[in-house]
Amino acid sequence: MLRRFLLVGMAGLLAAGILAGYNTVFAQDGSDAGATALNDVGNLTTMMAAFLVFFMQAGFAFLGAGLIRSRNVTNYMTKSFMDFAIASLSFWAFGFAIMMGTSQLGILGTTNFFLVDGATDWQVYVDWMFQMVFAGTAATIVAGAVAERTKTQAYFAYSFIIGAIIYPLYGHWVWGGGWLSTLDVIGLPAAADYAGSGVVHAVGGFVALAGAAVVGPRIGKFNSDGSANVLPGHNVPFVIIGTFILFFGWFGFNINSGDSIGLNAINTLLAGATGAVVAVYIQLVRTGKTDILAGCNGALAGLVGITAPVAHVDPWAAVVIGAIAAPIMLASVSVIENVFKIDDPVGAVSVHGTCGLWGILAVGIFASGNNDVTGLVGGNATQIVSQLISMGVVLAWALVTGFILFFVLKATMGVRASDEEQREGLDSTEHGVDAYPAEA
Amino acid sequence: MLRRFLLVGMAGLLAAGILAGYNTVFAQDGSDAGATALNDVGNLTTMMAAFLVFFMQAGFAFLGAGLIRSRNVTNYMTKSFMDFAIASLSFWAFGFAIMMGTSQLGILGTTNFFLVDGATDWQVYVDWMFQMVFAGTAATIVAGAVAERTKTQAYFAYSFIIGAIIYPLYGHWVWGGGWLSTLDVIGLPAAADYAGSGVVHAVGGFVALAGAAVVGPRIGKFNSDGSANVLPGHNVPFVIIGTFILFFGWFGFNINSGDSIGLNAINTLLAGATGAVVAVYIQLVRTGKTDILAGCNGALAGLVGITAPVAHVDPWAAVVIGAIAAPIMLASVSVIENVFKIDDPVGAVSVHGTCGLWGILAVGIFASGNNDVTGLVGGNATQIVSQLISMGVVLAWALVTGFILFFVLKATMGVRASDEEQREGLDSTEHGVDAYPAEA
Amino acid sequence: MLRRFLLVGMAGLLAAGILAGYNTVFAQDGSDAGATALNDVGNLTTMMAAFLVFFMQAGFAFLGAGLIRSRNVTNYMTKSFMDFAIASLSFWAFGFAIMMGTSQLGILGTTNFFLVDGATDWQVYVDWMFQMVFAGTAATIVAGAVAERTKTQAYFAYSFIIGAIIYPLYGHWVWGGGWLSTLDVIGLPAAADYAGSGVVHAVGGFVALAGAAVVGPRIGKFNSDGSANVLPGHNVPFVIIGTFILFFGWFGFNINSGDSIGLNAINTLLAGATGAVVAVYIQLVRTGKTDILAGCNGALAGLVGITAPVAHVDPWAAVVIGAIAAPIMLASVSVIENVFKIDDPVGAVSVHGTCGLWGILAVGIFASGNNDVTGLVGGNATQIVSQLISMGVVLAWALVTGFILFFVLKATMGVRASDEEQREGLDSTEHGVDAYPAEA
Repeated sequence: MLRRFLLVGMAGLLAAGILAGYNTVFAQDGSDAGATALNDVGNLTTMMAAFLVFFMQAGFAFLGAGLIRSRNVTNYMTKSFMDFAIASLSFWAFGFAIMMGTSQLGILGTTNFFLVDGATDWQVYVDWMFQMVFAGTAATIVAGAVAERTKTQAYFAYSFIIGAIIYPLYGHWVWGGGWLSTLDVIGLPAAADYAGSGVVHAVGGFVALAGAAVVGPRIGKFNSDGSANVLPGHNVPFVIIGTFILFFGWFGFNINSGDSIGLNAINTLLAGATGAVVAVYIQLVRTGKTDILAGCNGALAGLVGITAPVAHVDPWAAVVIGAIAAPIMLASVSVIENVFKIDDPVGAVSVHGTCGLWGILAVGIFASGNNDVTGLVGGNATQIVSQLISMGVVLAWALVTGFILFFVLKATMGVRASDEEQREGLDSTEHGVDAYPAEA
Repeated sequence: MLRRFLLVGMAGLLAAGILAGYNTVFAQDGSDAGATALNDVGNLTTMMAAFLVFFMQAGFAFLGAGLIRSRNVTNYMTKSFMDFAIASLSFWAFGFAIMMGTSQLGILGTTNFFLVDGATDWQVYVDWMFQMVFAGTAATIVAGAVAERTKTQAYFAYSFIIGAIIYPLYGHWVWGGGWLSTLDVIGLPAAADYAGSGVVHAVGGFVALAGAAVVGPRIGKFNSDGSANVLPGHNVPFVIIGTFILFFGWFGFNINSGDSIGLNAINTLLAGATGAVVAVYIQLVRTGKTDILAGCNGALAGLVGITAPVAHVDPWAAVVIGAIAAPIMLASVSVIENVFKIDDPVGAVSVHGTCGLWGILAVGIFASGNNDVTGLVGGNATQIVSQLISMGVVLAWALVTGFILFFVLKATMGVRASDEEQREGLDSTEHGVDAYPAEA
Repeated sequence: MLRRFLLVGMAGLLAAGILAGYNTVFAQDGSDAGATALNDVGNLTTMMAAFLVFFMQAGFAFLGAGLIRSRNVTNYMTKSFMDFAIASLSFWAFGFAIMMGTSQLGILGTTNFFLVDGATDWQVYVDWMFQMVFAGTAATIVAGAVAERTKTQAYFAYSFIIGAIIYPLYGHWVWGGGWLSTLDVIGLPAAADYAGSGVVHAVGGFVALAGAAVVGPRIGKFNSDGSANVLPGHNVPFVIIGTFILFFGWFGFNINSGDSIGLNAINTLLAGATGAVVAVYIQLVRTGKTDILAGCNGALAGLVGITAPVAHVDPWAAVVIGAIAAPIMLASVSVIENVFKIDDPVGAVSVHGTCGLWGILAVGIFASGNNDVTGLVGGNATQIVSQLISMGVVLAWALVTGFILFFVLKATMGVRASDEEQREGLDSTEHGVDAYPAEA
């Protein structure tokens, strides 16, 4: 029933968009209006960055698949693949207009639905492409946190909504000319988030927290006394390769239009490397083992942490930010599992959510005047106020909308696979295809 | 015997080329004649695009390996790796000259064999590199369609010929100044194929059809009553990662020199995403399962479909083209298996061949004047005539040369592994190396 | 004890660096001093190249993991991941200053430790990023040669030292204004190594030889009569994908700032392709089997060989260099195993070390005047003298420092896992995480 509703809805959406686009074409004079030369360095940088960010999808797919059990791998990777495709379409239809359209009172944009105005200016396509892959990244962060027990169709519906509404609104406030970028009206600098510690990672991470909480833990994760069991993932190489791919793509994520390309690249590298090293040595002291899974999440924690301040801090600060991100991530993993009793199979909430907040905060501390943002180390105590506001806003926005969304999905489509389905594995029940068929 | 012949032949070829190159060097004045500055934006775009297209080889390798059984994985990936290397050398020796050399009557080019003229103008190296990786893509499309039962040495011979002759000739007609690009002599616009739905994908796809037909189906594929069995692939994660890599590389495939880089990127993204979504929902309605293998091939179908029109259509049309490509692909898979009784383990004929034709046709329908090509939606009814001619030509060319080539190979070297070899697996019989050795 | 020492030492190092950086910041005037426009084509080329080189880490991780046994895969990939992170930090702290700082008598650089001077000129970040990923590549070459029996902590210590001292010193001599680049004082041209056949590959390869010799062979590799056993790797697809990724990244490795980008790309492609084809056919004649593992190492041999001469030779010479690299690699593998009785599980010494020497030599033979370097084919007999000097220097430097380093590590931390640990597998003993947990 609901499935049919969704199908019809999406088909309707696309038809509406196509019609809109078609009308736009015929409203034009048919000349080659958009044919301004686009091959300048800035556009090429932006596009190469976008392609690298797109490729991060493969990193998320590998990483999450490696961290879960083999009987749910087809399911996880299906979500990881389709969330990008679905969020792309909903962002094309609605998200881009809400995020980057002309702002109404600083709350949301309202122009360029279905990208119909793009045909008159090809430059907008460059911007759109870049924004689109960021939306896709936010969407796919959630897949890992709800892995191994969430119904596929409900996850697809979530993907549509995050790309259409949840991601674009906060994005509008920070990047689209919305109110967090115009805090000067109350005497504060604009909240700064260069490449999206907040806009992408914290949004994804806290929607993930809401999703994991509403769906509930995997069967077998928690004992009756509340203690947690380790449910090991099935493929360590996938985890490491996934992390490498994410790290590679992160250079695209963080360079943006390239005005400080060397600074951004080096800060990205140093923060990620330091996060990995610190996480590994912390675990070595604690357990006597060299824990590469902690190392991978440590690298990602450092990368998430440097994402907001990447163009504003000096390299020594990137090392510090990465070094602090690692223990923050490790502590967050422990708190979420042992205090909140929430089951996050891949640590997505801690890596993207908690360290996303750290990244926003780090701007207020470490920004040294690069690209015109200055924090405490540069002697400016007002930037951190804007950053704290932004942290509170993104936390509240992602959690509130995340809980509403997943509760609605729970009440309508249902979100949780039955215990029996979980025991059999979602690959079999939802897809009819094992990740590694025994007969093949 | 034949093997020795081939070895000697290839060695002779290379020696001839090297001699030619060597002579060229000494015929020059020894000055640094080619040292014009090459680091402009257009060249960088073209080279980055070429590298991304090169990386698609890894996508094809993963994708095809995932879709077949583990006992033939070393064999498939060997072909997938070596076809690129071999086609590179044959394209260097012959293909580039035939495709992009000075045209003789619009039929074939005849200058720059072994790239001997390149030394005097380094710009030609940029163009050549770009053309080369496209040739390699055409070559590797065939590997999947003939997987699990084709002799390795025969496949190597095929790789040499497609890079030397089959790919370059049709390429010359469309991209090298040949007759399909000069249809104005009969009052028609030039046949348009921006990034190679026809030149690369349809050529590869229909040579694949010929190959699969001549080699015959895998043992166990068809029952005595003609009905087909499903032979599941061994590794779903490889399929999904392979698709991600192909999608990533496709941005390079489709941006070309970058004059409309944003438009091309967004159209690529939308067509691929739509193809995936539509294919998944069609299968969901048909089977009640979320079929990610259809989703992956749906994404690829959308990408093949948008390849020819990518710079000529508006984004709404990219959505439509991708949405139509998915059912075309699904129907084609069914027809090839159930009507033609041809065994294509990975769906290469449908994805690349059939959807390649759709891409050529789509230019005639949806081109809206972007980059000076206009189709039906722009009010021009002549472009589609040129496109229909081009579709007929590529279909005939690829099938005729493909059948001739594989029949000749069958008559000389033999193309089909024996039933016993197929049962044991080609990894063991041809390579002596299992993909996943039990003792390791 | 030692572990604690190392931890304290690394923490101290980082603290010192951070302090230095922090002081630098406050010594500045706080203005946005570095904000020169950086988005020109050359910088973008260099950064994209750096990102591709970074991605080669994933290639090394896949390749090496595929060539070893599953019980040591977590261990190998841990080293492969962490060596990059650790070498990045030691290169940031020390290596960059030693390699690229102001030269003292042509021996070593001494400015810009911890990159403290970078804050005043952002261009230095671009150069640094590029150098950094090369240092990481040199570091990770060793992981494969010492795989399956080397203690993780000792390997981490090695990673620190190669990034801090071993790699940067020879690098200074060739690329940093050191004595090998000023041989004109004795009437010779500067030793030429365009992209690092020597600086990166030969250094890594011969340190790997020293490491493998000091650590000793894996148990079971050699019989009591000195004959060697084949210990097959566990995953052929990983090997092939790893090679594809390396090949892809190599385009970044070899294009540098892009002045002859087309020439460099085509030479890279042709040498790699030829190496693969020649290696496969040599093995086919020798064994009757199509040996793709030889093909992969053949491609890498060709790529290593073309790295030094890539911008100086014409395409025909790239084919010859690749064709010669393949048998050199195959012969070297045989000599190292059967004559030296050294166990190199992945062939790293032969691919990177031996073929690295070949690359340096090839400049002296084949350079045709491109980018102002001329060898024998251009009628200049002096370049090869400089190349021979450079070959001797890199061989001696890497072996001497490599043996010293690994002997010191052996005497202090210990380098070799016990026979029992090797039998159980290092994944279990050092990490407590199997690569593919049976219960998952």
